[in-house]
Amino acid sequence: MDQGKGDKSGANAMWGGRFAAGPSAIMEAINASIGYDRRLARQDIEGSRAHATMLGDTGILGSKDVEAIREGLLTVLSEIEGGEFEFSAALEDIHMNVEARLRALIGEAGGRLHTGRSRNDQVALDVRMFVRDQCDAADQALEALIRALLAQAEAGADWVMPGFTHLQVAQPVTWGHHMMAYVEMFARDRDRFADARRRMNLSPLGAAALAGTSFPIDRHATAAALGFDGPMHNSLDAVADRDFALEYLSAATICALHLSRLSEELVLWSTAQFRFVAMPDAWSTGSSIMPQKRNPDAAELIRAKIGRIMGASVALTTVMKGLPLTYGKDMQEDKEPIFDASDSLMLSLAAMTGMVAEMSANPESLRAAAATGFSTATDLADWLVRELGLPFREAHHVTGSLVAKAEAKGGDLPDLTLEEMQSVHQGITAGVFDVLGVENSVASRTSYGGTAPSEVRRQIARWREVLG
Amino acid sequence: MDQGKGDKSGANAMWGGRFAAGPSAIMEAINASIGYDRRLARQDIEGSRAHATMLGDTGILGSKDVEAIREGLLTVLSEIEGGEFEFSAALEDIHMNVEARLRALIGEAGGRLHTGRSRNDQVALDVRMFVRDQCDAADQALEALIRALLAQAEAGADWVMPGFTHLQVAQPVTWGHHMMAYVEMFARDRDRFADARRRMNLSPLGAAALAGTSFPIDRHATAAALGFDGPMHNSLDAVADRDFALEYLSAATICALHLSRLSEELVLWSTAQFRFVAMPDAWSTGSSIMPQKRNPDAAELIRAKIGRIMGASVALTTVMKGLPLTYGKDMQEDKEPIFDASDSLMLSLAAMTGMVAEMSANPESLRAAAATGFSTATDLADWLVRELGLPFREAHHVTGSLVAKAEAKGGDLPDLTLEEMQSVHQGITAGVFDVLGVENSVASRTSYGGTAPSEVRRQIARWREVLG
Amino acid sequence: MDQGKGDKSGANAMWGGRFAAGPSAIMEAINASIGYDRRLARQDIEGSRAHATMLGDTGILGSKDVEAIREGLLTVLSEIEGGEFEFSAALEDIHMNVEARLRALIGEAGGRLHTGRSRNDQVALDVRMFVRDQCDAADQALEALIRALLAQAEAGADWVMPGFTHLQVAQPVTWGHHMMAYVEMFARDRDRFADARRRMNLSPLGAAALAGTSFPIDRHATAAALGFDGPMHNSLDAVADRDFALEYLSAATICALHLSRLSEELVLWSTAQFRFVAMPDAWSTGSSIMPQKRNPDAAELIRAKIGRIMGASVALTTVMKGLPLTYGKDMQEDKEPIFDASDSLMLSLAAMTGMVAEMSANPESLRAAAATGFSTATDLADWLVRELGLPFREAHHVTGSLVAKAEAKGGDLPDLTLEEMQSVHQGITAGVFDVLGVENSVASRTSYGGTAPSEVRRQIARWREVLG
Amino acid sequence: MDQGKGDKSGANAMWGGRFAAGPSAIMEAINASIGYDRRLARQDIEGSRAHATMLGDTGILGSKDVEAIREGLLTVLSEIEGGEFEFSAALEDIHMNVEARLRALIGEAGGRLHTGRSRNDQVALDVRMFVRDQCDAADQALEALIRALLAQAEAGADWVMPGFTHLQVAQPVTWGHHMMAYVEMFARDRDRFADARRRMNLSPLGAAALAGTSFPIDRHATAAALGFDGPMHNSLDAVADRDFALEYLSAATICALHLSRLSEELVLWSTAQFRFVAMPDAWSTGSSIMPQKRNPDAAELIRAKIGRIMGASVALTTVMKGLPLTYGKDMQEDKEPIFDASDSLMLSLAAMTGMVAEMSANPESLRAAAATGFSTATDLADWLVRELGLPFREAHHVTGSLVAKAEAKGGDLPDLTLEEMQSVHQGITAGVFDVLGVENSVASRTSYGGTAPSEVRRQIARWREVLG
Repeated sequence: MDQGKGDKSGANAMWGGRFAAGPSAIMEAINASIGYDRRLARQDIEGSRAHATMLGDTGILGSKDVEAIREGLLTVLSEIEGGEFEFSAALEDIHMNVEARLRALIGEAGGRLHTGRSRNDQVALDVRMFVRDQCDAADQALEALIRALLAQAEAGADWVMPGFTHLQVAQPVTWGHHMMAYVEMFARDRDRFADARRRMNLSPLGAAALAGTSFPIDRHATAAALGFDGPMHNSLDAVADRDFALEYLSAATICALHLSRLSEELVLWSTAQFRFVAMPDAWSTGSSIMPQKRNPDAAELIRAKIGRIMGASVALTTVMKGLPLTYGKDMQEDKEPIFDASDSLMLSLAAMTGMVAEMSANPESLRAAAATGFSTATDLADWLVRELGLPFREAHHVTGSLVAKAEAKGGDLPDLTLEEMQSVHQGITAGVFDVLGVENSVASRTSYGGTAPSEVRRQIARWREVLG
Repeated sequence: MDQGKGDKSGANAMWGGRFAAGPSAIMEAINASIGYDRRLARQDIEGSRAHATMLGDTGILGSKDVEAIREGLLTVLSEIEGGEFEFSAALEDIHMNVEARLRALIGEAGGRLHTGRSRNDQVALDVRMFVRDQCDAADQALEALIRALLAQAEAGADWVMPGFTHLQVAQPVTWGHHMMAYVEMFARDRDRFADARRRMNLSPLGAAALAGTSFPIDRHATAAALGFDGPMHNSLDAVADRDFALEYLSAATICALHLSRLSEELVLWSTAQFRFVAMPDAWSTGSSIMPQKRNPDAAELIRAKIGRIMGASVALTTVMKGLPLTYGKDMQEDKEPIFDASDSLMLSLAAMTGMVAEMSANPESLRAAAATGFSTATDLADWLVRELGLPFREAHHVTGSLVAKAEAKGGDLPDLTLEEMQSVHQGITAGVFDVLGVENSVASRTSYGGTAPSEVRRQIARWREVLG
Repeated sequence: MDQGKGDKSGANAMWGGRFAAGPSAIMEAINASIGYDRRLARQDIEGSRAHATMLGDTGILGSKDVEAIREGLLTVLSEIEGGEFEFSAALEDIHMNVEARLRALIGEAGGRLHTGRSRNDQVALDVRMFVRDQCDAADQALEALIRALLAQAEAGADWVMPGFTHLQVAQPVTWGHHMMAYVEMFARDRDRFADARRRMNLSPLGAAALAGTSFPIDRHATAAALGFDGPMHNSLDAVADRDFALEYLSAATICALHLSRLSEELVLWSTAQFRFVAMPDAWSTGSSIMPQKRNPDAAELIRAKIGRIMGASVALTTVMKGLPLTYGKDMQEDKEPIFDASDSLMLSLAAMTGMVAEMSANPESLRAAAATGFSTATDLADWLVRELGLPFREAHHVTGSLVAKAEAKGGDLPDLTLEEMQSVHQGITAGVFDVLGVENSVASRTSYGGTAPSEVRRQIARWREVLG
Repeated sequence: MDQGKGDKSGANAMWGGRFAAGPSAIMEAINASIGYDRRLARQDIEGSRAHATMLGDTGILGSKDVEAIREGLLTVLSEIEGGEFEFSAALEDIHMNVEARLRALIGEAGGRLHTGRSRNDQVALDVRMFVRDQCDAADQALEALIRALLAQAEAGADWVMPGFTHLQVAQPVTWGHHMMAYVEMFARDRDRFADARRRMNLSPLGAAALAGTSFPIDRHATAAALGFDGPMHNSLDAVADRDFALEYLSAATICALHLSRLSEELVLWSTAQFRFVAMPDAWSTGSSIMPQKRNPDAAELIRAKIGRIMGASVALTTVMKGLPLTYGKDMQEDKEPIFDASDSLMLSLAAMTGMVAEMSANPESLRAAAATGFSTATDLADWLVRELGLPFREAHHVTGSLVAKAEAKGGDLPDLTLEEMQSVHQGITAGVFDVLGVENSVASRTSYGGTAPSEVRRQIARWREVLG
């Protein structure tokens, strides 16, 4: 994209006489971006206003022109936000639409706004500011989700539930502990968005078409005015770079992955087979033909969103693959993946926060599921090591035999008598029964980050402090 | 999705009393599909009309009801196509919107349309018919593109140009030959869409929610009425399957890959460095700041489209990964990738056809580029094998020495004298010069599918016959 | 890749004097493919033997040379298959390794093998033959899997189990019906591989470096000798095309998707919560610390394989994006994704076939799960429509009220008395109880492809006949 | 994966009697990871030694046992590194192979090593340490590449070359400026790897199977011993998390994207059409049949690597999609994508560094290409704005007319006479010729980050200082 591209049909005279033929409707359909890049109106106008101010402060434009431009742009913005603006496909994109309207409003001064600037750095700026806003939005939404998880964790810090590996009951853990695992994941997501934001927070404005400009512009000033940490250091890179979008999409993909895991669990937990949680009405749908159903639609939809978010990441990476410097029109394909992925992510985060906040765990079902499947076999093995000094591997053999004995008897480990136990290993004492209950089991896992309620509460407190 | 999902806000009473709470705005935003699935209106109504006819023919509904339904649906369709239809997000999707309007128009009979059917098989039908239409559309667009390529090939069947490997000049070929390589690619694409279409051409209608129905429906009749080869053979598969969409997206991705390769060549060929073709004005854009530029925007945009088309394929595959049978709400995420990919593909094919039809190759530039870089070295080596009986590898060594000699002299192979050649290998005769010209080189490649103009014309004729 | 590339270290003199410097170890590491393309040895030698025969039949080579080449190549193959062959990285790839050994074995004649051929068409041939073999292998493996599914379906054609939507119990279906849904999916996969095979079954051999050749070769003869339907029609396309690999990878991805869905179900069905099937010991692993566990490792690993198979598809598509014609070294990156994806697919199919053959469904658990959750609500609604003539939507309201009544009472629909039913709708008669049992429900779904055991058996019989 | 899984064939008795049947060869093939996870030997042993030390320091094991374990592990490591170790597929993975050998070497004490640990946290630790190492390796390789780019930039800080948009000549820039654009990109890559490293630098060790342990282990001690910033805060997350790998793969994908763009430029610049650079012999390959060719194989291979690196990212993301907590065997599919992507990245960085260090730009070709195509039209337009006070858009129209005039005359802008210029706009003075030369043009772009040699040198100096 270059400065001044625009009307190819004669309605806009900027292209001059070089192009004899008017572009076909197909070309307009494939080339025009105004259908979607109008979402960048706010960023575009904010950037132009900062540019105009700088042009005034450096003496490149007179203060009257600057004032007219700044006011005119505000008018354009209010027209757009008020829904009164008439977008024109012949003017291709948001930049030309805004500029044409500005000139219609304020006359010749509008034509001076583009001094020392090009559409190449302008679009790079707009998209970057949009993505920066999305990082901020994701950060806030993630904080809300984390707070909802913390509330669940606090409520159920000592509710015993099965810890699964391979979706088989492995060891008892607590509901609070499980919720806190997701707190860790979503906190890493926040951290990733924060890093991406910091890295992208340099301004491309002033790179002009690609080489910089001979006008005595002040890139540090526009950068500061727009909340950047400074200007980008190389003008070619400034117009050719889409790293910020790719990094945002990568962070969004990992976040969507976490959401897909939690969604999968919510779907499982809501089945008649698990009955671990009841999904709130607001986040389910029913069926008229099967009126008893309470389908976890929201969870399923969130689970699916990773598809399009990763798809957007793949799309933009593929677009950028092998592009020579600097700007190629291929890069216009950055916007829709960004819009689609960020909309999907924000909606997913909001819906998940609602579900987490409103779902009701069923402590009885959780506990019952945890108390089956010989889930305290590890506790027994550890007891054999700790109390009888058995080597680890031998302790496991003994445990295996005891499990087999209990299974043959149709019960679980606590159902064995001391005699039955001693028939497998003579050294076993009555003390062993202390570790076979699921409450005892979880209470004993006091290693740092372990599932003991005391540990879980320590982590909840730590996070409360972090969040403030 | 199940039959009868719908109003959660009270406006539609189908959910009954099970859901105390109204769904939040977030739920509506994430759950409602009417914003995009309205594109399926035509397929939805066509399917419903066929279903109604069958219900009448099998005696399940009376003929008066059937007539009312069929007429009412036509009215709904004309309202939608005329832009008068008011879509309701509370009614979630196109199916419920159409049905609600039908009942408003014809009363109780409208409620009978859903007999022996569910939204699960209904949506499966609609999407399948949409994708089938896209296969047909792609087929036609590809035929147009192939015809444009054939016209270029015919015009330049004997224009010599460089054949590249590694983007280095390798051997002379012809413009026609190069165009025909793309004919082969796009013809394979047509073949792939045809196979996908054939495989998807079985009707899911009548699978009902998932298990089939106890009503004496005639699935063969509805299948035939809707242009299918027959009904799908398993009702669970009928509602759970999205293979047809995935296969379409795979074929579209490979097609987009071919488009990306041709686009890359058009971009390269339009540079000041290559000057092989002049891009038509209609498919280029200019720049006001650099008014001399003629940017190959259309080619770049087509090159980029593979990103979102492959992205859509990745997205839907990821959505479907690991979904248990049968329908899950995740599957609602099939539509937007399909819409986006098919729009992108159709637009790309149309724009590429326009570019190919209107571009002007520059035969002088092509020939000049072919005649440099020792491009007939292979011809020389082959001559040494054929005429002097040298083993292949030895012939290559002799050729290498001759190239080095010519390069040292600042010329190409034809610039060597016979004496200079004989100083490298005594057996070389004056006949060697017959193979060193680029026209002779291409004319000699008469193996089947080779670059000789006679062979190229044979292939053009073959394709003309195939296309009819 | 071009003919004659080879030794960069001086051991092989084919590059001649142009390259003063030897390539570094890094270049060898990135450039040499012999570490993996040795898997193509059989295809490479088979192709070379066919080429040699044709060179003899067309009089390009003498019969003595041809005989020596054909015998020599057999010797090389037996050395490779016997593990005695010493591969050399300096010789870069399988083609040069074989050829160098051939020349060592038979002398000068070995140098004549390459007449009228290039490494470009040679590698295109080898990879294509490898992928064609993989289509055949997948076809056979899928047939075995389908037979295993048919056996399961036959055994449990009338075992009632829950049919799920949204992983919520929706309607009763049969085990046989569920198994047959996968038969349909895997049969489509076979069909896709067959189409891909047919489309790829044209020979690139004789395209030479890219332009064809002036030697009077017979491409139809080599094509026939190697089992192809004929030669490819354009020599540029022949060396530039990798569609066959991409189409194979697409088909493999969809197949892996089906495997992932079945795996997910096996993982779910093996949980303590579902207990629908018992995974055979051979396909599970245990844990010493939790000796009671029977982890469905094989199912989990198969579920995961779609990752690398789709990853391979994305990888190769990305590699090919935007490559100008004809051969670029980028295309060497085709092999490892193909090898990895095909290995993953074949292993997954074999393991899934084993699991399906050996798994034991638990008919009691299946039935019990089907008989809960008001799973025959639809049958009740259909009865109201059919017997009492209620409009569909009204029947659903009545059903919803009856479900609510049963739920309030703590039972399921059959637990309601006739009086209780009539209090909701007076017209209900005792006949209604005939449709409320799960066996009656499934037996009634006799629409084509429905879940009625009679229908399931009909489909089994149809497939038995198709398979022969 | 759980502690103690292992021999299913009887050679290893850990599974006990629960598994009647031996696993088939297929199961071993799909389940065993020792074929690739042996690459984690060093990390595995380092982790085990730290764990043993901690078990001693906390009094859980006696010092004699600890000493034996630590020494024994060193012996195992030296056996592995010396190539003497016999890996056993029956022992499945690197963890069991090392442990079995340890017990063979030191007897019963070896069995105590696993106290308070599981294979779940062990493998999480090993993979994390491997990825952390890869972050460090990438950082060093990127620094070397940046230094090579800086050297090129310094040499050619004032060599004029064309700046491209749409691969059309846009404005003159300098070679140094272009090189520095890649410095910015690769520096961001370093920054991304550093952030990923920091975020992943928490230790999962001590999470045990999933719940933590009742042994009084000191997770802070093992974390510190292994160079971590501390222990992970939630044991479920510790065994379920693969974010660190996904984030590494995301950073690697963006880095590979930068490499693909530079590779594309090197391929273009090496063509006969561009002749901007000469590729060093060491990084090219030749052709015996076309001995004049110097194919940019290394650049093409690097360009392609983004395929498999992004493919690996897609693969692992897809594997992890929707996995319920905590460990699933699916997660074993993390290793091969990580290995393949990191090998590909490191090789690409090394080869690119070699190419950049050794390539020779051709300043004459660069300048000649920059001085065509009316590349200083923007300078002319800016002059009209600055000197004559024309509004921007009007200046563009005047420039367009001057370009058309020059083009009609068959020359470039400096070839116009002052009279010819004044015939378009009377105000133009002789001073205009000062801005029409390419050297003047680049010298004038002194805005921050612009292409003026003074600015380029300022950025080189800044980076020299950053790198130290």
